Amino acid sequence: MTKENLIACHSRIKPFIHNTPVLSSRLVNNLVGAEVYFKCENFQKAGAYKMRGATNAIIQLTDEKKANGVVTHSSGNFAQALSLGAQSLGVKATIVMPSNSPKVKKNAVLEYGGQIIECEPTIEAREAAAEHIVKTTGATFIHPSNDLDVILGQGTACVELLHEQPELNAVFCPVGGGGLIAGSSLAAHYFGVNCMIIGGEPFEADDAYRSLISGKIESNITANTIADGLRTQLGHHNFPIIQKHVNRIIRVTEQEIIEAMRFIWERMKIIIEPSSAVTFAAVLKEKDQFKNKKVGVIISGGNVDVNNLPFNI
Amino acid sequence: MTKENLIACHSRIKPFIHNTPVLSSRLVNNLVGAEVYFKCENFQKAGAYKMRGATNAIIQLTDEKKANGVVTHSSGNFAQALSLGAQSLGVKATIVMPSNSPKVKKNAVLEYGGQIIECEPTIEAREAAAEHIVKTTGATFIHPSNDLDVILGQGTACVELLHEQPELNAVFCPVGGGGLIAGSSLAAHYFGVNCMIIGGEPFEADDAYRSLISGKIESNITANTIADGLRTQLGHHNFPIIQKHVNRIIRVTEQEIIEAMRFIWERMKIIIEPSSAVTFAAVLKEKDQFKNKKVGVIISGGNVDVNNLPFNI
Repeated sequence: MTKENLIACHSRIKPFIHNTPVLSSRLVNNLVGAEVYFKCENFQKAGAYKMRGATNAIIQLTDEKKANGVVTHSSGNFAQALSLGAQSLGVKATIVMPSNSPKVKKNAVLEYGGQIIECEPTIEAREAAAEHIVKTTGATFIHPSNDLDVILGQGTACVELLHEQPELNAVFCPVGGGGLIAGSSLAAHYFGVNCMIIGGEPFEADDAYRSLISGKIESNITANTIADGLRTQLGHHNFPIIQKHVNRIIRVTEQEIIEAMRFIWERMKIIIEPSSAVTFAAVLKEKDQFKNKKVGVIISGGNVDVNNLPFNI
Repeated sequence: MTKENLIACHSRIKPFIHNTPVLSSRLVNNLVGAEVYFKCENFQKAGAYKMRGATNAIIQLTDEKKANGVVTHSSGNFAQALSLGAQSLGVKATIVMPSNSPKVKKNAVLEYGGQIIECEPTIEAREAAAEHIVKTTGATFIHPSNDLDVILGQGTACVELLHEQPELNAVFCPVGGGGLIAGSSLAAHYFGVNCMIIGGEPFEADDAYRSLISGKIESNITANTIADGLRTQLGHHNFPIIQKHVNRIIRVTEQEIIEAMRFIWERMKIIIEPSSAVTFAAVLKEKDQFKNKKVGVIISGGNVDVNNLPFNI
């Protein structure tokens, strides 16, 4: 996972992704007391940064493996990303999705040409279903976050952010499976100038926070958070990178997530999903530590079911 | 209302407004079969293009008049715009608002330093309340749409759009009180190259459509549309401009408005209000006439009450 690997990965996926805009807002800067730069991966193809890692992982396959297709299990955004990435590379994608995934995410997978296999919403059920497909079709399993090619791909969002704002003092990322924050921490390490990487995580799914304290991968017993993209677990590929390069993780409540999401929607007029609001909520929660600093925030995605929004909770 | 007037107005208000981005989307272009350029006034200060006309009208006042403050009646966005415009110019603003205005709009007025006087949601009631304030305080009444300085100011959004995309074949605007479309039609006349101006209007408040047919200002009996910014009536200042320069008006149903809004939210990940969705709905409705053309769409604003969204209707 060298600087050269990251640069090569970025060149490889560039034709298939957007270099998404970096937005700022006077209102936000006043509220936080810092210069805040939002890397808007909600405007990425398929609506989330996951397109980066998915595309990188598929491109790296041999032609023979490409011919057998790819398979993943995903609670949402990686499902769409792998479907669209595969479609644009002429590869078949099969997606194992928990039966309680938001309808808008299922529809998007179908639209991008992915084939959905539904399973019970447990880690065991989805792993078993994916394994069955690998065995019966010869497809290559691509993990949404615990895969070195995926981690490198996800890191390219932070590479672009630091290219546009090289002097960031900190970059905030959401922490779900750990792919984005691991990749971002590599980007900050190689391209930042003493740039801290800080994770945002819901109290309700704080496996990464606890793992960093205990020094081993901890599990979420329940993951009862509105931030559906962050219910997943760290993996053995990304955890060592996170241990080495991530400075800290800030936990936020469900109410803080909803309020941060409402603020961005109402004031910046952009659609961000709850998992992205976690990150901004983390900034707000500890804003006193970033007075007059330059802070980056990776807005991970904008895929929400508009029929089922949390603002009335 | 000359080209020079429009240029001078633009220079005058530039320090107080954003030159908002022009966005496009491959998905939208594929759906419409044309190149569509969205002028995103939802990212304007106070969340709508109204900031332009309000600021121009206030700047034009004498110092003596400025000292007595300004007053308007508005169903929403002009209220916020006049409050913020007045605040940034050190002028007091009083806003007469119908009692059923969305709470998010009332809160924004208060936050921008405006003083709210509530009235019954009828045109008569709000005119009477505004007149009372003018008489008792000496404040200057500024109409949200039927005012030449306001019309010029609103036209500057289309000036900027045509500066960025000079070869647009048509620009679509929503039609409420008529200020935006009148100003935009002047901009297209002076800065476009055979650029048509087309209005989008709800069937439920189609006064402009009927007025263009009859040749005189028609009234909305009811205005039972979700597009709350478009419930207002044309006026004697903007109607002659509209008659002269607007090519046609396309009417859309409430369902078409909601579907257009959902599409922009879900696919472009930006928050637009129902009045802006009317315009995109009009593009979709008659897209066959714009095959392979270049089409501009003025996204008028992004002020919605996220507690009260229409997608479940």
